[in-house]
Amino acid sequence: MMDNCLGAQRSRKIQRAFRHCKVTILCLLLTVVVLRGTIGAGKFGTPEKDLAEIRDHLYFRKRAEPHRVLEEVQTTSENDRAGADSNAGTNNYNEFDIKKILVDEESDDLKHDPNEPYSLGPKISDWDEQRSKWLKENPSYPNFIGPNKPRVLLVTGSSPKPCENPVGDHYLLKSIKNKIDYCRLHGIEIFYNMALLDAEMAGFWAKLPLIRKLLLSHPEVEFLWWMDSDAMFTDMAFEVPWERYKDFNFVMHGWNEMVYDQKNWIGLNTGSFLLRNGQWALDILDAWSPMGPKGKVREEAGKVLTRELKGRPVFEADDQSAMVYLLATQREKWGNKVYLENAYYLHGYWGILVDRYEEMIENYHPGLGDHRWPLVTHFVGCKPCGKFGDYSVERCLKQMDRAFNFGDNQILQIYGFTHKSLASRRVKRIRNETGNPLDVKDELGLLHPAFKAVKVSSS
Amino acid sequence: MMDNCLGAQRSRKIQRAFRHCKVTILCLLLTVVVLRGTIGAGKFGTPEKDLAEIRDHLYFRKRAEPHRVLEEVQTTSENDRAGADSNAGTNNYNEFDIKKILVDEESDDLKHDPNEPYSLGPKISDWDEQRSKWLKENPSYPNFIGPNKPRVLLVTGSSPKPCENPVGDHYLLKSIKNKIDYCRLHGIEIFYNMALLDAEMAGFWAKLPLIRKLLLSHPEVEFLWWMDSDAMFTDMAFEVPWERYKDFNFVMHGWNEMVYDQKNWIGLNTGSFLLRNGQWALDILDAWSPMGPKGKVREEAGKVLTRELKGRPVFEADDQSAMVYLLATQREKWGNKVYLENAYYLHGYWGILVDRYEEMIENYHPGLGDHRWPLVTHFVGCKPCGKFGDYSVERCLKQMDRAFNFGDNQILQIYGFTHKSLASRRVKRIRNETGNPLDVKDELGLLHPAFKAVKVSSS
Repeated sequence: MMDNCLGAQRSRKIQRAFRHCKVTILCLLLTVVVLRGTIGAGKFGTPEKDLAEIRDHLYFRKRAEPHRVLEEVQTTSENDRAGADSNAGTNNYNEFDIKKILVDEESDDLKHDPNEPYSLGPKISDWDEQRSKWLKENPSYPNFIGPNKPRVLLVTGSSPKPCENPVGDHYLLKSIKNKIDYCRLHGIEIFYNMALLDAEMAGFWAKLPLIRKLLLSHPEVEFLWWMDSDAMFTDMAFEVPWERYKDFNFVMHGWNEMVYDQKNWIGLNTGSFLLRNGQWALDILDAWSPMGPKGKVREEAGKVLTRELKGRPVFEADDQSAMVYLLATQREKWGNKVYLENAYYLHGYWGILVDRYEEMIENYHPGLGDHRWPLVTHFVGCKPCGKFGDYSVERCLKQMDRAFNFGDNQILQIYGFTHKSLASRRVKRIRNETGNPLDVKDELGLLHPAFKAVKVSSS
Repeated sequence: MMDNCLGAQRSRKIQRAFRHCKVTILCLLLTVVVLRGTIGAGKFGTPEKDLAEIRDHLYFRKRAEPHRVLEEVQTTSENDRAGADSNAGTNNYNEFDIKKILVDEESDDLKHDPNEPYSLGPKISDWDEQRSKWLKENPSYPNFIGPNKPRVLLVTGSSPKPCENPVGDHYLLKSIKNKIDYCRLHGIEIFYNMALLDAEMAGFWAKLPLIRKLLLSHPEVEFLWWMDSDAMFTDMAFEVPWERYKDFNFVMHGWNEMVYDQKNWIGLNTGSFLLRNGQWALDILDAWSPMGPKGKVREEAGKVLTRELKGRPVFEADDQSAMVYLLATQREKWGNKVYLENAYYLHGYWGILVDRYEEMIENYHPGLGDHRWPLVTHFVGCKPCGKFGDYSVERCLKQMDRAFNFGDNQILQIYGFTHKSLASRRVKRIRNETGNPLDVKDELGLLHPAFKAVKVSSS
């Protein structure tokens, strides 16, 4: 397909035209399931968030196999034991599933014996020893690069294919430019993944094998920061309060009550999180992954999650629900090392932020990271790379431009420029140039980041 | 336009359809001018390169104003004095030019008085003093981060607009992913520009005001590495031989004879170069920029360059021709600090490299940087972001995928994977996972880069 890109474009056009026919049916299903979803969640979560999360997963699945939405709407009420089992970790495949897997696009990448339970890789139980030995032997790669400043690797990525929605790649480009800027200012390295390392863990589960591989390959990395491609930094001055997490291994945006008491599927968000390199990380990845394998396992696990979690619509198992379920059911095992952060937006739901940017500019300043100036604006449910031409995606794209420009203004101000408006790509000067450029101080003190970063984190 | 992206897509579709009508006429003109070009250059440069360079500029200009190709074919023989003057630095505008500028897309960004000669910014003559004072006062920002290891900022970028050719953004994304990988391995920071800082210097001249701004804002940066968005790293292991340039300020791929003796417009390439931060850099930027301002100045200067340089086709002044002209006419002033490198591919023309990747894999290994394993493969003339659906761009896209995968294989091998073929996005394992990941050494020793980087540069 890549051998003939113009051909590929043409065929994509045809595919698109074909998909359009499905949109009508899907809108109908959307309404049905959204209603079911809100009724289920309204009491507990923020309905607005639920709607977005539900849209999110519907988009996601629609792109994969639209017609299956129907099947699931029909099978919701079932309480399938097999589902419960598979969720417990035993993957009981049957002829049908194997055929299903073999017709899959990436099927020939599939080495794994369907009779064996899925594993992310060889069991490792002495990673802390291996790692600290390595760190001793390689003093030129300290896992801390300053006081309270761990070495951090930000990991993100996108599909190796061009987006179904052609404009989507432009937003992926803006999203990585935005991350490059934040990471340059805060001394963070970036790994952008475009490869599917494990065909079974495609979709929202792909991050798990990738993260494990990177932790094991980079003992010098203390914290791995996963960030979805549809999340952007909107506070370029905010430094993560690393010292706050010195006794924790896993930091996600969320609320203890919503996860542990309500088992609410949006009690936390897995679109932007910090994971400390160590044996504990390998262990929780192993405990997190069993619901991931594509096909029967993921579908049956989805039923269990929908049954057990508050407000979750019907769809195959996703990594976020699985994490809520894991923490809620095994709090004693993991809870003491998990920090659910809500003092700032490690993840911030775009729906409640994007319309307030002007108000933030009016009243506040970068560096706060919270509702006054969010660190991250996450376009949950927008899937700009997917083909879905309804109004909400149109709104998404407009708002993604605003979020990008909102963040980009903090970079441009360093050099004396700003966007003409949050809606404009165009820039204008905010100060005249001088013959003594080094006397100019940017208000945010972002010009000399590494230093600033450490200073901020220790203040 | 960005306020309504779907609307924008529709309107782009219409524009595209409209442009298609022009392709036929253009192919005709293409042939005419390509012939003229080769006859002019064949004797001196590599005809193959000339053809690509000529295609390059034709694409470039076609996208801007196709019909003008004709005018210029007609006016080639003219030897216009006004052109010579404008090239000498005096910009003589007239009513017509000003009107022309005012109808320009970015016209309202234009603050500059057309009666004043163009300037990149306030005159600075003591930058070396200012900078060394700053470096003394900020020891936490050394301009050298290791023995023979200067602090380097790689600067690249692309238009703030989505590509006219929708698949183009996907190639920009792959291109920046490729740069992120090389720069992470070699301890280089990245600045990705998406803003037009100076409307007058749009197009191939936009890099000049950007580079000046970055040099003045980042005194800690010793070398700025400019790289076009259509250039990709194909040798992830090659470290630039920094010590070789200790007495030089400006490094470009090129040949002394072709620049100084032949005045050949492709005697050097400005798509990938190294510029040392200092007063000398500000001075050469000032000497380089006078042919840049859009409109009459750039057009007249183009005539001078075509008249004075070997093998140059007819089109408005471009930054590369202007640099050849500057060095050829003022060698005594600049030559002693300019290093024209051809021992490795700081820039490598794709046409002579991409078909040899399999042969390179067969016979050589990364780290050589030259014809055996090129550091950079530059897709001169491909303009994947521009709308141009002829065969050569189809070939470009296919070859850009091959170049990306060729470079990406060197990253994937670190983690035990490789692309199934240079034509495939898909990856496969090249070794089994182990319980002792730290005992695995990647053949290229790229796993722990900063160290490697310094080691290579001093070997």
